[in-house]
Amino acid sequence: MENERLRRQMDFLLEIDKEKNIFRQTHLSGGGRAENDAEHAWHMALMIYLLREYANQDFDPLKAIVMALIHDVVEIDAGDTYAYDAAGLATQAEREEKAAQRIFGLLPEDQRQEMLELFHQFEAYETPEARFAHVLDNLQPLMLNHANNGGDWRIHNVARSQVMKRNEKTPAGSKTLWAYMEDLIAENVEKGNIRDA
Amino acid sequence: MENERLRRQMDFLLEIDKEKNIFRQTHLSGGGRAENDAEHAWHMALMIYLLREYANQDFDPLKAIVMALIHDVVEIDAGDTYAYDAAGLATQAEREEKAAQRIFGLLPEDQRQEMLELFHQFEAYETPEARFAHVLDNLQPLMLNHANNGGDWRIHNVARSQVMKRNEKTPAGSKTLWAYMEDLIAENVEKGNIRDA
Repeated sequence: MENERLRRQMDFLLEIDKEKNIFRQTHLSGGGRAENDAEHAWHMALMIYLLREYANQDFDPLKAIVMALIHDVVEIDAGDTYAYDAAGLATQAEREEKAAQRIFGLLPEDQRQEMLELFHQFEAYETPEARFAHVLDNLQPLMLNHANNGGDWRIHNVARSQVMKRNEKTPAGSKTLWAYMEDLIAENVEKGNIRDA
Repeated sequence: MENERLRRQMDFLLEIDKEKNIFRQTHLSGGGRAENDAEHAWHMALMIYLLREYANQDFDPLKAIVMALIHDVVEIDAGDTYAYDAAGLATQAEREEKAAQRIFGLLPEDQRQEMLELFHQFEAYETPEARFAHVLDNLQPLMLNHANNGGDWRIHNVARSQVMKRNEKTPAGSKTLWAYMEDLIAENVEKGNIRDA
């Protein structure tokens, strides 16, 4: 093919098809099968768009949505690390950085840099886009788990303190959505779906 | 809950979880299982972003991406209509319009109107965003099918004329991507994956 740039873009776009085979701990609503990363990213991107009025700070929705769409691409190599898996979390950053270099490295140089920058911004939690994207990265599985009567929390015997730790930066992204999430968490503690500890 | 607006937004966002159970005729690369609508929309949204330089006309990437993310929501009620199913295509518009009214009707009025407008724009093929989004709606499954040695075309005994008809408006969205697609189509006709008729 004469267009080397397009060939590299298409190589990346075909490679990320594998994200559809990376399954998470979260289950689909209606007590369905495990959700995969591509489905999660799609859902999260739409949540960013439709709930953007609740962000604490002004942000660029396009940037936050692209961040959401690519934030789990690294799991093609590094696998999904469950939010409450301490051993996995210890090595997660190193595994994911290596994956980011390989996978985004398939792209032409300018797009490689842009995607790496968005991925690193997401991980660093510092820009308004990253803060708000993380709110939805947490609200999306909470919504599904609540709809499933807390099945995923019960399987993993999750404690309230773990959920609060996981969400310690959520209020920095959206006070309104955090208040909504606190209500859902309290309801699930009361029902015994989340351990009161 | 005191926030009726947020409740409606969350009702919609939970409802569309069902899109992950709407399976398409396309199979994942590597000869995998059938792809679902949420995965297709995720892939298509990233393709719009990373290939936007090839659009014939300037367009708003955020608008085109949100269009892609929601374009198949109607299939929750209306089901997937295969691109080469003539009987299904005859009733598709009516079934999908009814679905759009119900599903987007879960949202607050301003967002209901916005999402309906984006859905109708996509269907009408008239705005630059709709034209370019459609290019990727066609290129994404073509990429996967090519990677799978044309399995989906062979199963359905698809003819070159059907592929060309399906893509008759693709050059209006992107001359460059259409040239790339023409090469892939020709290669698959040569291999006997697409019938030369």
